[in-house]
Amino acid sequence: MKPPVIGYERGKLTVLDQTLLPQQVVQVPLATLDQVEHAINHMQVRGAPLIGVTAAFGVCLAACRQTDPEKVQTAAGEAIQRLRNTRPTAVNLFWALDRMEHTLNLSGAGDLAVALETQARGIWQETQDQDRRMAAHGIRLLAPQARVITHCNTGPLATGGLGTALGVLLEGDRAWGGLHVYVDETRPRWQGGRLTTWELKTHGVDHTLICDSMAAFLMARGGIHSVWVGADRIAANGDTANKIGTYNLAIAAGYHRVPFYVVAPSTTIDPTLDTGRSIPIEERAWEEVAQPLGQPLAPQATPVWNPAFDVTPAELISAIITEAGVAHGPRYDLRRQPGASNPPGSG
Amino acid sequence: MKPPVIGYERGKLTVLDQTLLPQQVVQVPLATLDQVEHAINHMQVRGAPLIGVTAAFGVCLAACRQTDPEKVQTAAGEAIQRLRNTRPTAVNLFWALDRMEHTLNLSGAGDLAVALETQARGIWQETQDQDRRMAAHGIRLLAPQARVITHCNTGPLATGGLGTALGVLLEGDRAWGGLHVYVDETRPRWQGGRLTTWELKTHGVDHTLICDSMAAFLMARGGIHSVWVGADRIAANGDTANKIGTYNLAIAAGYHRVPFYVVAPSTTIDPTLDTGRSIPIEERAWEEVAQPLGQPLAPQATPVWNPAFDVTPAELISAIITEAGVAHGPRYDLRRQPGASNPPGSG
Repeated sequence: MKPPVIGYERGKLTVLDQTLLPQQVVQVPLATLDQVEHAINHMQVRGAPLIGVTAAFGVCLAACRQTDPEKVQTAAGEAIQRLRNTRPTAVNLFWALDRMEHTLNLSGAGDLAVALETQARGIWQETQDQDRRMAAHGIRLLAPQARVITHCNTGPLATGGLGTALGVLLEGDRAWGGLHVYVDETRPRWQGGRLTTWELKTHGVDHTLICDSMAAFLMARGGIHSVWVGADRIAANGDTANKIGTYNLAIAAGYHRVPFYVVAPSTTIDPTLDTGRSIPIEERAWEEVAQPLGQPLAPQATPVWNPAFDVTPAELISAIITEAGVAHGPRYDLRRQPGASNPPGSG
Repeated sequence: MKPPVIGYERGKLTVLDQTLLPQQVVQVPLATLDQVEHAINHMQVRGAPLIGVTAAFGVCLAACRQTDPEKVQTAAGEAIQRLRNTRPTAVNLFWALDRMEHTLNLSGAGDLAVALETQARGIWQETQDQDRRMAAHGIRLLAPQARVITHCNTGPLATGGLGTALGVLLEGDRAWGGLHVYVDETRPRWQGGRLTTWELKTHGVDHTLICDSMAAFLMARGGIHSVWVGADRIAANGDTANKIGTYNLAIAAGYHRVPFYVVAPSTTIDPTLDTGRSIPIEERAWEEVAQPLGQPLAPQATPVWNPAFDVTPAELISAIITEAGVAHGPRYDLRRQPGASNPPGSG
């Protein structure tokens, strides 16, 4: 049972509602730009690469609702601007929208809607191709029977393809069997507890769910081969923004000398940023921390801090795996070869 | 509004049900040994020192239900054995029951029930005295306006007195004002999110709730003065078992060079253990991880690992504060002066 994560036909975008998984498997049709914005903001669609793909199709939706060719250009341009404001941290969103904008600027008004759709489908296809290549590079760093830890969700649900970090693990298990994946539940949104467990179960991979705070003790008790995470934005020096808790996990891995791997398409690299200090960090709603799963937990009006991401410094990352190969730390220079077609070192 | 955490009159033990806080403030009467066991096992009563006090009164309950003086001894002896099996990690439980057993062995059958009550009241009084002395020692390590992090609950709810680590923070704020306490929510049982937030609010201390996985990023963003936690058992070399997540937090504090303080009565020290490797670690139920707050989260039958405690090695602990003073790390030798009356170094 592997329902499609995303689907598009002219004017009809359909996404799997990730806020309802694993209890309910619901495909949500998105017909308007408002609905696309809502789906991204409320994390019905999430995962940095999938947000990019969804936003690209969102631009197509806005474009093809116009019958007047003159209005297609305006509508698509507005859609690009609005979608840029949905989530600030994942750079793949901006990369995808930049590509759509490029198409918008170069295409004639007559065939613009078609050109935008071609571009969006290309972005999705490229994402899937990158996933396969990342997995091929990544499994060289795995071992049969390995016990590994992962955080958040980086599987098919996060990209619409094979996934990033979890894609490596799924491919590793498919190749050798015997993998055991420890899954951080990933407070406050439970992507590990809800989504990664569900994907591992669906793919028949052995796994164990833990609370985020248990990972260090698990490493101390021994036998952990490596830690695998995705990324939402990577600075030129290798500093990596990813789901809150990644930094905690990386420090614990460093303390136990457990290799810590980041898997992300090269579109996640932001060469305009020297270090991770400049990455904008989204802060999300009070309820996510104070009322988990909609239940009252803390006293009324308890102040919370709820950053959705944190920044792991390059010194804690053993290697960054992109579709182009494996860049080994700790001295990253990802700016030397930025961009998808000319990506970081294939050491 | 500070409802009593525990109360005892002959044959009537009353505890505040900590599983219902902060939404409901309910005093639960405990009349039988079964009820006391249930209250400890289900964490209506928790916190290492308070578990010890509750168990001591539980023995009194069992004793005073007997009218035949001969049966008092048997009933009290059985109660001690049964209560030993409630929770394996916190050593204060065994210390309190050893004291009760000592009284049981030394007292004549005629006045045994009274002698046991005197001993239990003494244990409770001693716990409260220790709390005040720990706080007096601990605040010397604080600073006015300090921003600190704490984990789990170590306040009045954890001891029936002023508290251990949180006791230091409450006294520090009372002395100077201006303290700001960041509270780890403390998955899987939410003692931070439910209990510590409530106690800080009740005492009017500024605070912010975070998920456990956010603590490292908070330290990276700067301005954290120190981290304060309690302990459930401390080995002779200073290795400390405490609520799961403590170890994660200690590693993060070490990485950021933030002082990490453990506050616990000397009864928490177990001089029979060389290191923390020998401390038994309780594992708790599947539901706590897979169904937070009783809600389905993970897919049915998802395997979980749920250790209730972890062990922080002495090398990560800046100082251990007991009622006798401050023992500075990292070379602890807590066996040299074990026991409440002759406790670890007052350096």
